[in-house]
Amino acid sequence: MPRLSVFIDVILAQKLEGGLLNIYKQDDYPHKVFLAYRVCMTNEGHPWVSFVVHKTRLHIAQDPSLNYEYLPTKGMKSFIQASLELLFGKHSQAIVENRVGGVHTVGDSGAFQLGAQFLKTWHRDAQAACIISSQKEPHGFIFQDMGFKVYEYCIWDTKKLCLDPNMLLDVVENIPHGSILVIGDIFNCKLTQSQWTKLMSTIKSKQLFPFFDIPCQGLYTGDLEEDTIFLQYFVAQGFEFFCSQSLSKNFGIYDEGVGILVVAALDNQHLLCVLSQLMNCAQALWLNPPATGARIITSILCNPVLLGEWKQNLKRLVENIMLIKEKVKEKLRLLRTPGSWNHITEQMGTHAYLGLSHQQVEYLIRKKHIYIPRTSRINFTCINTHNVDYITQSINEAVLFTSGAERGFPKADKP
Amino acid sequence: MPRLSVFIDVILAQKLEGGLLNIYKQDDYPHKVFLAYRVCMTNEGHPWVSFVVHKTRLHIAQDPSLNYEYLPTKGMKSFIQASLELLFGKHSQAIVENRVGGVHTVGDSGAFQLGAQFLKTWHRDAQAACIISSQKEPHGFIFQDMGFKVYEYCIWDTKKLCLDPNMLLDVVENIPHGSILVIGDIFNCKLTQSQWTKLMSTIKSKQLFPFFDIPCQGLYTGDLEEDTIFLQYFVAQGFEFFCSQSLSKNFGIYDEGVGILVVAALDNQHLLCVLSQLMNCAQALWLNPPATGARIITSILCNPVLLGEWKQNLKRLVENIMLIKEKVKEKLRLLRTPGSWNHITEQMGTHAYLGLSHQQVEYLIRKKHIYIPRTSRINFTCINTHNVDYITQSINEAVLFTSGAERGFPKADKP
Repeated sequence: MPRLSVFIDVILAQKLEGGLLNIYKQDDYPHKVFLAYRVCMTNEGHPWVSFVVHKTRLHIAQDPSLNYEYLPTKGMKSFIQASLELLFGKHSQAIVENRVGGVHTVGDSGAFQLGAQFLKTWHRDAQAACIISSQKEPHGFIFQDMGFKVYEYCIWDTKKLCLDPNMLLDVVENIPHGSILVIGDIFNCKLTQSQWTKLMSTIKSKQLFPFFDIPCQGLYTGDLEEDTIFLQYFVAQGFEFFCSQSLSKNFGIYDEGVGILVVAALDNQHLLCVLSQLMNCAQALWLNPPATGARIITSILCNPVLLGEWKQNLKRLVENIMLIKEKVKEKLRLLRTPGSWNHITEQMGTHAYLGLSHQQVEYLIRKKHIYIPRTSRINFTCINTHNVDYITQSINEAVLFTSGAERGFPKADKP
Repeated sequence: MPRLSVFIDVILAQKLEGGLLNIYKQDDYPHKVFLAYRVCMTNEGHPWVSFVVHKTRLHIAQDPSLNYEYLPTKGMKSFIQASLELLFGKHSQAIVENRVGGVHTVGDSGAFQLGAQFLKTWHRDAQAACIISSQKEPHGFIFQDMGFKVYEYCIWDTKKLCLDPNMLLDVVENIPHGSILVIGDIFNCKLTQSQWTKLMSTIKSKQLFPFFDIPCQGLYTGDLEEDTIFLQYFVAQGFEFFCSQSLSKNFGIYDEGVGILVVAALDNQHLLCVLSQLMNCAQALWLNPPATGARIITSILCNPVLLGEWKQNLKRLVENIMLIKEKVKEKLRLLRTPGSWNHITEQMGTHAYLGLSHQQVEYLIRKKHIYIPRTSRINFTCINTHNVDYITQSINEAVLFTSGAERGFPKADKP
């Protein structure tokens, strides 16, 4: 009799990631384009790496005095300190008061995993996790596996072609009392001062627990402080919150898992208790976080010359992103593509909505071999001087040859 | 009224790690010694790093063609392949039959976390995890947090001063049917062929699921194949099992989390199902494992010249470990310290039991500022030419000035 496998009941898991990328890879068409990479791409189609990172990596490898011992579970102390100063500002009152701290994690998934584990044990009022973002987030599964009821909201208005502050406020009004409120990538949602006040008072009155996701500080405006200014509102109001801070995308260190779970508490005593419990969780998850990425970033953040160069790198990168968006818009204008395309340049950051209907997206994928997500939220750094003409002509075709009903074209600003 | 903290119920977690190290660090005594580091130390008291690693790290930093994109969730394919070949041998039948595979993890804790998560979901018969090792393992908490009943067994016989194969067999006889059987660091437990046969037949009949822990292949005998030969027995017998393979200690890359969870299944079909589910878990844990350590190791394993140099490094390291053990034994003999000290050189590897009683350990810590764990299992690479005299004289004192009752001295071989 043949032996039965212990694994006889294990079924093949559905792939959660890479579906579109896999189809793209199998496509033989010579002009195929993939517009959904997670990382910034250069004009040559390679992942962008800050020049300062290359230099620092080499410098570190040449340093014979470095110690390669295990990091403590909490991670690299200088890295955490430098990252907190980056996030809140060097002279942040919260840092002075010792009521913000962090645990070095394996990327932002690690930060969400750690935070969710903690909240499951220590914030028992929270039965649900509500994730609000410009896109449906990949972190929902983490909360779901942990037993939270998960609600994911996208606040992109397909009619008005913008991230709608009123949608954001509506969602917050209607989610369950006491929920975890994951506030993802909403930089482009332009709240007025009174909308901010309303948002914060709702969060307070409903006892929601904010969990921010800062995936790429500096890549919106090119200015590090301006990109996280909304976080300052919450700090100033004395909110307690978690924040996942990833430093992969703004340094171009994608393969090192450089994340931090940041904790803001009312005072140092509570902070220390929370950090100690987080370290207990981290001990079971990975015991020691990886060092290379953190070491490179800390070297840069703590050296004024390197820091200055990195900031220049960031600025140039953001200028290039804006240039490519302008170019796309201009080319669509010259092609007399129906509709207004102002929303392209109104959104800041690497990723932005093209504002196409599902049918138009379908057209681009099937007929033009241009792979973009169903939401039409693409990575604009994947568009470069070599493919911009093909892409804009294809968008023009898609718009002309399909119904825009689903998108609900607004009239063009200037007819 | 002052605001109440969300974290009001969070208590300060007890520190699980570093207790002894912290006391050592606070000690001002100039000749204090810490003999419980996890990593190999050089004669100068620094963490050992294979020279080939330094060279390769520099080479990698100088390579402008490298891609720093996120690794896939499964990890670096070439790293996994090279590690499997290291573990099972290049011409392993199991590799040829495609029934062994692996997922790149963040260190060995990551491998245990991943494996335990999988087993909790997919091996529901297993209610308990039994950990057998020369020491009580740090992985127990991982299984405990996951809801397993955990039993940890140390098979060091304090009377006979050896790892006792009969204790091992007894434990396996008596643990619950269907348990996960974590087989830790038991290289020094010398089973006869018939004892191996008995062990394997008990595992089979009791439907135990083996989960091996290979923390430092090559650091016992200096020969990579010989160190994992017991794994070959299980592979040859067609066992299904998990194995945590860490490559930190044998390369001297401690701060990068270079681990693998290895899966051995009956056939490729079952293997693929298990790997797909493991990837689902890894996606929520860290999404992408860190690359630097894996890249360095793969470069070495796949280059015959570097591989040869690394093997030489390992051999020299193991020879030095044996030399320092011989020196300790010889010095104790010259000091006429009561008891036989043959067990020191009979144990292979960096860590070995001194075979002292709790009272003697206490004496060394309190009176001599020599910090060693209660079990007296120390890292022999922490002993070097600078401190060996102080350490052996102190052991001699401890033995003379305390009762050896607890240790139960056997008579010395030669009176």
